[in-house]
Amino acid sequence: MKMSKMFMPTLREVPAEAVVVSHRLLLRAGMIRKLANGLFTYLPLGLRAFRKVEGIIREEMNAIGALEFKPSVVVPGEIWRESGRWETMGPGMLRVTNRVDQELVVSPTAEEAFTALLRGEISSYKQLPISVYQINTKYRDEIRPRYGLMRAREFTMKDAYSFHSDDASLDETYQSMGKAYRAIFRRCGLSVIPVRADSGAMGGTGSEEFMVESEVGDNNLILCPKCGYAANDEKAACAPDPVTTGPGSAKTDKPCAPIATPAVRTIDELCAFLKTSPKAFIKTLIYRAVNCELDLAGSGAAAAAPGTAGLKRVVPENSPAYYPEAFFAVCVRGDLDVNEVKLAASLKASEVALASDADVERITGAPVGFAGPVALATVPVVADLSVMAMHDAVTGALKADLHLEHVEPGRDFAPYLVADVRTVVAGDKCASCGAEYYAKKGNELGHIFKLGYKYTKSMGMLYLDENGKQQMPTMGCYGIGVDRTLASIIEEHNDADGIVWPMGVAPFHVCVVPIKYEGTMKEVADRIYDGLAAAGVEVLLDDREERPGVKFKDMDLIGIPVRVVVGEKNLPNVEVKLRREKDASLVDASAAVSKVADIVRAELAAR
Amino acid sequence: MKMSKMFMPTLREVPAEAVVVSHRLLLRAGMIRKLANGLFTYLPLGLRAFRKVEGIIREEMNAIGALEFKPSVVVPGEIWRESGRWETMGPGMLRVTNRVDQELVVSPTAEEAFTALLRGEISSYKQLPISVYQINTKYRDEIRPRYGLMRAREFTMKDAYSFHSDDASLDETYQSMGKAYRAIFRRCGLSVIPVRADSGAMGGTGSEEFMVESEVGDNNLILCPKCGYAANDEKAACAPDPVTTGPGSAKTDKPCAPIATPAVRTIDELCAFLKTSPKAFIKTLIYRAVNCELDLAGSGAAAAAPGTAGLKRVVPENSPAYYPEAFFAVCVRGDLDVNEVKLAASLKASEVALASDADVERITGAPVGFAGPVALATVPVVADLSVMAMHDAVTGALKADLHLEHVEPGRDFAPYLVADVRTVVAGDKCASCGAEYYAKKGNELGHIFKLGYKYTKSMGMLYLDENGKQQMPTMGCYGIGVDRTLASIIEEHNDADGIVWPMGVAPFHVCVVPIKYEGTMKEVADRIYDGLAAAGVEVLLDDREERPGVKFKDMDLIGIPVRVVVGEKNLPNVEVKLRREKDASLVDASAAVSKVADIVRAELAAR
Repeated sequence: MKMSKMFMPTLREVPAEAVVVSHRLLLRAGMIRKLANGLFTYLPLGLRAFRKVEGIIREEMNAIGALEFKPSVVVPGEIWRESGRWETMGPGMLRVTNRVDQELVVSPTAEEAFTALLRGEISSYKQLPISVYQINTKYRDEIRPRYGLMRAREFTMKDAYSFHSDDASLDETYQSMGKAYRAIFRRCGLSVIPVRADSGAMGGTGSEEFMVESEVGDNNLILCPKCGYAANDEKAACAPDPVTTGPGSAKTDKPCAPIATPAVRTIDELCAFLKTSPKAFIKTLIYRAVNCELDLAGSGAAAAAPGTAGLKRVVPENSPAYYPEAFFAVCVRGDLDVNEVKLAASLKASEVALASDADVERITGAPVGFAGPVALATVPVVADLSVMAMHDAVTGALKADLHLEHVEPGRDFAPYLVADVRTVVAGDKCASCGAEYYAKKGNELGHIFKLGYKYTKSMGMLYLDENGKQQMPTMGCYGIGVDRTLASIIEEHNDADGIVWPMGVAPFHVCVVPIKYEGTMKEVADRIYDGLAAAGVEVLLDDREERPGVKFKDMDLIGIPVRVVVGEKNLPNVEVKLRREKDASLVDASAAVSKVADIVRAELAAR
Repeated sequence: MKMSKMFMPTLREVPAEAVVVSHRLLLRAGMIRKLANGLFTYLPLGLRAFRKVEGIIREEMNAIGALEFKPSVVVPGEIWRESGRWETMGPGMLRVTNRVDQELVVSPTAEEAFTALLRGEISSYKQLPISVYQINTKYRDEIRPRYGLMRAREFTMKDAYSFHSDDASLDETYQSMGKAYRAIFRRCGLSVIPVRADSGAMGGTGSEEFMVESEVGDNNLILCPKCGYAANDEKAACAPDPVTTGPGSAKTDKPCAPIATPAVRTIDELCAFLKTSPKAFIKTLIYRAVNCELDLAGSGAAAAAPGTAGLKRVVPENSPAYYPEAFFAVCVRGDLDVNEVKLAASLKASEVALASDADVERITGAPVGFAGPVALATVPVVADLSVMAMHDAVTGALKADLHLEHVEPGRDFAPYLVADVRTVVAGDKCASCGAEYYAKKGNELGHIFKLGYKYTKSMGMLYLDENGKQQMPTMGCYGIGVDRTLASIIEEHNDADGIVWPMGVAPFHVCVVPIKYEGTMKEVADRIYDGLAAAGVEVLLDDREERPGVKFKDMDLIGIPVRVVVGEKNLPNVEVKLRREKDASLVDASAAVSKVADIVRAELAAR
């Protein structure tokens, strides 16, 4: 393609809101433009790169036998009601009621659409397993869309779903999806961090996220340099780290006793006052849990949880009973933090948040700052694992200006629930091998997940097995954000001058830049351009009347992997330069086509 | 691809709602499924055909230098407010207010999105002309979606827009779009009827619709067998056809006079009573017009229209003044009908409808059935051209049970406006050459249109011309419905057994069908399959364990253009049969690959 026929509005400056490098470079290189908050238009050059990423994903999906479908983007609300997600998806799902009062949804994902489709088509075990996918528009109404394509409202997702008659078959597809994902990201030139979601165990997992490091990532990744353990901090576990020296390290026989702590509120103040360490302090936080599914009333051998007798409990017909609101006292060692996602998972709650001051005072019978687990009867106590390894500890006494010392967990209080609810951070020890964790921020590009029967059950998908008996298929889902993958490639492949596309996703493989597009230079440039195009190379000819410096800057900015410069002083040689390298080499013009085509082919072949 | 790896749920029966052949066959061939009213999912086979159509459109757009973009599907309501279409698009446009109170639209078309984008990018005449397009999801909230892909709610449209510094440049792009459209439909195997929208003139038109004949088409096409004139009846004109014999044919000197017509209401009753013909009767209908932009108050030499002095008139700042409501008496020869679209255009009104009985009685001062133009002073009279050619006519007398005879238009009444407002029908004479029209129903597949300044003006798009002066670009728009094109191909290419795909849009070029997939038949089938695939032919191998009859029926249903049957009794020959032909020919198995590949290549090359 000739630049004069292209539309490539490169920019020197970009809006201040473009803080990440991919956002800045996509704007500067004339690849995208913002239409509104979180809504972008791909310009021709950006669309070419987008299609390359899409093409790689499609090839790898087809290679493992997944079949491409194209459902509608707008789908009926009805199927979301069937699955139960109409209620749980929250305001991020864009819902419309149309003129004839039908509820519609602009798809944020498509478990429902594919289950609704295939339950009408799959009737026999002979049709299983089946893997289906689409690469299609999605919409999620992000409250704060930002970072350009990294967190937009509308985006393109490859979402695949598989249906199986047994777990072994699901696992087989799950594994081949994982392999395909690795191939996709490798071909895109991306270093991904595969993060298995269930903590600890390294095999037989049912969920894997593919992360890329990003300073603005919305995931905190906990990584082990030795064994490769990688987890989102919302799931990460660590090896136990009992306090071994100093305050709180040794068991005491002294009875638990109150100690006056006037005008002391923070842990730091308390430690100074008592000459102890935060590691000897049991921090107690009152949490409010929403839709908690724990069986707080107790049943069989399980005792009822303290203070929960009067709680409202909802018993739906087809799903577990839950408490719309319940409060808990959550204890963690004073130097550690509670991770609310881990806490919510432990409490089987849809959401947890710190209780209001009024609730804290009501529950603890004391001003804020004096909560503690000892003799607390108004709410159940949840103790982090770290607490149960503590000795001779200090904690709030449930009275103003009073703490308790010589507290021995187990002796002085028995938690209702002991769980791993602490936030794991860099420096903690690996749960698998004991090495010291490091941490990174990451963005999720892909996720593969064993869904099980969630949708096939709620939406009533059945098939007949070998014995003519009705069975529910088990299901997996597998997503990749296409735009986010594209942006991440730029995040990983750029320098001060612009983008440095890997060959496989470059909008063009080669650019031919005549110093001036006239006379012999024009002839040679045209000949090389035509030759490369005939050889199947995607080539851009800069036929603009611009100064060479401007052309070079633009070509560097848009990141074309190979540049061929045709200048009078070098003829009959031309200059061939790789974008990622500093130096150019001179090649006889007559050999340039075959030489450059070889470079392109070799890089495309190196998957 | 092997059938065993494909998902192709063919059906014998389809829902009764599938009344058109494309809908039936798309369902039966397992190419689409309905998710909800007007919302469809493409299954793998259907998606392959869809991509072929999309690919042809893309190639032809690229060939004329149009540049592909990808705007978002969900766009801000704000840009629709800017263009003024937020108000005029009606309830067919799907609007959402999101959680942060932003108005969003699921795009029904994209004049606004592209104008908003390019007004920020185009600053100089040097950047013009530019043609841009997308192939993307659209949504229109059809009240009664039906006929499968023909009238769905969500669909894919190729929509292109061009921007120009002058009319000559717009016309050049408009002409090349027209050529590209002809090429697209030709390559899709479609017989389209290009319909120029402005009546009469055959050159220099500013709008052309590409129609396909369809029994369920929503357009009435008026066609000339001799000169090729083709028009939508909403725009069609015809040659004048004065009454030359019988009642109403001769001028009279008798004065217009009342005649009692007791208990006579319909034109037929009146003609029987007066022993005259409908052609001698001036039918007068009272219409209510909405947002009429005619200058009814008169200015300069133009007189004010009768009875309009007290009408409410709105004078907006940047657009023409209009009357929110105005009434008109519309006269047409008794045997003809008023076309409301033509009438609305003549009245520059957004909408016209017959007035209520109460309004008719108020305006005519008589019961319904006695309206006439003579001495009518309460509303302006609009006379169709046919009326002004009438003589010695009969019309209502504005009194119950009374008509007027010997009416001479021009002598006995002078219309406020004479216009062409009649419905043209088969049998009328061609406006261009006088031959007799025939009529067809048609569906619009594409439309090219000179928009002019509508959007660049309302949305404030400006560039600097050669003299550094700010100018507004003029604009064209060019749409094709991709799904509808696909469905139309099936409408035109099918037989009793199923679809008969033209090679260029077939989901696969060739199917190889072994009578049984075992032994030598398997070996030969595999060899031909591999050979064709290696030759770049898209080939489907029916490796299922089904009876040959079932396989043949399926392959006929899904319409693969070439079938290669490998049967024991014919070996070493195989049977090669074109889907569209009745007879097969025997070909030596070793020559089958090259022979079949040649057929495919030849048909793909024949554009």
